Amino acid sequence: MFRKLLSFDEARQILKKNFSPKPVGVERVSISEAHDRVLAGDVVAQMDVPPFDRSTVDGYAVRAANTFGADEDRPVALKLCGRVAVGESPNIVVENGLTAEIATGAPLPKGADAVVMMEHTTQKDDTIFIHRPVSKGENVMKAGSDIRKGETILKKNQRMSSREIGVLAALGLTEASMYKRPKVAILSTGAEIVEPGKPLPPGKIYDINAHALSAEVKECGGEPINLGIVPDERDQLKGAVKRALKTADALITSGGVSVGPKDIIPQVLDELGEPGVIISGIAVKPGKPTTIAIIEGKPVFSLPGHPTSSLLMFHIIVRPIICKMVGRTEETPPMLKAVAAAKMFTARGRRTFVMVSLTYDKNGKLLASPVPTGLSGAITTLTKASGFVEISEERQFINAGDEITVYLFQTRNLSSPS
Amino acid sequence: MFRKLLSFDEARQILKKNFSPKPVGVERVSISEAHDRVLAGDVVAQMDVPPFDRSTVDGYAVRAANTFGADEDRPVALKLCGRVAVGESPNIVVENGLTAEIATGAPLPKGADAVVMMEHTTQKDDTIFIHRPVSKGENVMKAGSDIRKGETILKKNQRMSSREIGVLAALGLTEASMYKRPKVAILSTGAEIVEPGKPLPPGKIYDINAHALSAEVKECGGEPINLGIVPDERDQLKGAVKRALKTADALITSGGVSVGPKDIIPQVLDELGEPGVIISGIAVKPGKPTTIAIIEGKPVFSLPGHPTSSLLMFHIIVRPIICKMVGRTEETPPMLKAVAAAKMFTARGRRTFVMVSLTYDKNGKLLASPVPTGLSGAITTLTKASGFVEISEERQFINAGDEITVYLFQTRNLSSPS
Repeated sequence: MFRKLLSFDEARQILKKNFSPKPVGVERVSISEAHDRVLAGDVVAQMDVPPFDRSTVDGYAVRAANTFGADEDRPVALKLCGRVAVGESPNIVVENGLTAEIATGAPLPKGADAVVMMEHTTQKDDTIFIHRPVSKGENVMKAGSDIRKGETILKKNQRMSSREIGVLAALGLTEASMYKRPKVAILSTGAEIVEPGKPLPPGKIYDINAHALSAEVKECGGEPINLGIVPDERDQLKGAVKRALKTADALITSGGVSVGPKDIIPQVLDELGEPGVIISGIAVKPGKPTTIAIIEGKPVFSLPGHPTSSLLMFHIIVRPIICKMVGRTEETPPMLKAVAAAKMFTARGRRTFVMVSLTYDKNGKLLASPVPTGLSGAITTLTKASGFVEISEERQFINAGDEITVYLFQTRNLSSPS
Repeated sequence: MFRKLLSFDEARQILKKNFSPKPVGVERVSISEAHDRVLAGDVVAQMDVPPFDRSTVDGYAVRAANTFGADEDRPVALKLCGRVAVGESPNIVVENGLTAEIATGAPLPKGADAVVMMEHTTQKDDTIFIHRPVSKGENVMKAGSDIRKGETILKKNQRMSSREIGVLAALGLTEASMYKRPKVAILSTGAEIVEPGKPLPPGKIYDINAHALSAEVKECGGEPINLGIVPDERDQLKGAVKRALKTADALITSGGVSVGPKDIIPQVLDELGEPGVIISGIAVKPGKPTTIAIIEGKPVFSLPGHPTSSLLMFHIIVRPIICKMVGRTEETPPMLKAVAAAKMFTARGRRTFVMVSLTYDKNGKLLASPVPTGLSGAITTLTKASGFVEISEERQFINAGDEITVYLFQTRNLSSPS
């Protein structure tokens, strides 16, 4: 029971050696479903965008050479030979001395090489007076000037926002190859937990982790499979883990682990395949009992039962793995620099993670205040914290006023009040 | 055509006077579907959490008074009267001179008021030697100390992350009242656009906006209804807008507006209900032709056809409205301070928005570089920009080196390399 625990860095090395997280497959995804998905390959443009020379203004398509010398008082006179509206394929040819009216976005007719803005012209019958010269290419967006056919326009591993979806649409694509969302099975174990919605017998509490972790998996782009509560009993646990790993790409359990000898989970995991348990306890606080196994090439993360500990361990250890399986290249959670609002203490010899809340002081300085976790089972801690601070094994404490890096649980509420 | 345009601030005032965005309804949402939804009411705890006094350690439940004076060499001897496992409802009573073994998380048996950690005890047969005194309440998490019955634990308008979902689960709740996701219909119009996936006739381009705006609506929590392309023809447009507003809570159109007299959209919108068009052109760059109407209490945003302009106008004008309809209290996009990497010019007398990309220089300073939008139709601009800078009507330019606020399109990629 008092054997030396793996350090956080040792545990990470062992995990890295035993499991290389990568996407679990590729599928075609429609652009209407692509939001937040990840490209499985580069997208090479199969066409020019725009596909033709377009006018960028309302005006007159001309041969630039015909407008040289034009000025306010001595305009050049050109003869109107037609009109080009947007969406048309013009069959006019703008010969020397001719001009065609053209709308913004319309294709430049043959012969023309520039457009004079409407404001710089006057008209009398079918004669157009040009009051300013234009140079070749002026007010024209050349075919392929935005995206050239053959160009790699989106890259493998790029995450799809509205803007990347817009690029696919611009190329006429209705779908693209994206990484499959990894299926992550989640189960809770422990004799004391009861599924929300059911009556609560004395001595029991409601299960939090399966629900909170499912939402976390969703947030990093995985597909959670919430298996609910599995009794803390050898055969049932073994059966549940086995079934889970048949369909899921990874498994997260919570509860039922501690650094003691009587815990069933590590034993069950060791019986299910090689290499089995690779990490059994880590010198971190909180989260010490965290156990990690690899079974048939799939990772199993057994997190502690305390919601605060399991959430932290999820962010520190599990999230980077799932992100890579999703295809997201960000490996670390989003972070911010802040100033410690109070002294924070560490657990001697253990990598310590302290939950913090963020506020701005009246000078606009971002302050990180430790959220009291004296009650280590407290779930309200979760709602008060915006992120956490990592403190190395060597440090005894962080002083109030020290500059620190805060890892955020979410990125959405960063707006400064100033 | 040269009448005075509304200023950006005037336009915002008019919009505010004519439309108060609010959630469109309330529904019960399961905790498995609640991620990123918004609470429609406060959540008041109907039970204590934990529901009973719990041990926070493995050890022995005692009467604290019985342990006074214990030390390493002269332990206090107590008689073992039973065991309490997690999930049990103990019927033992810890009388004076007695103690019960207790597991972390197990309910404190009657009579006991503290727990001595296993490490501070020794055992001989059924006698437990206590080597350290404990005070009343030590190593015990009191019933209701995390959440007290009757306490307001989550607030109306709170957005559900894994942590808030965990709180609902802790209270045994499987669902809660959330705001309905507003339905936002989206259509594109313009003679030159073609639905992606279809063959592209000469002179035409693929529609980008319906797809990009649908993803944007999804991102702010709305439910997009992508109506695709509606021909730029009076009766068809009128029919489409009418049908859209029957089911949708808001409508976004793009294309077919300019500050000219021949555009059909403003006319159609004016015929469909009071007050009709309330804003017809705004002194901004880009996005000048932006037209806004209120029809039967529902907002219609008619954005320009250029993808860059329509995306910017979405972020500046539409997004805050949809966010409020979703119930999200953040009104402004997330922002960051940065330093202008180059001079940025404005359009005289118009509120100017400049797309920028963000990079860190070698000193870790965040630099905002203007993304060239010379080609105002360019869609690659979208993929290069991380956000935009707002420049007031009074300024002629922003100088390289000036500190500026950058509004972000997304928040996810903020990690500093340092």
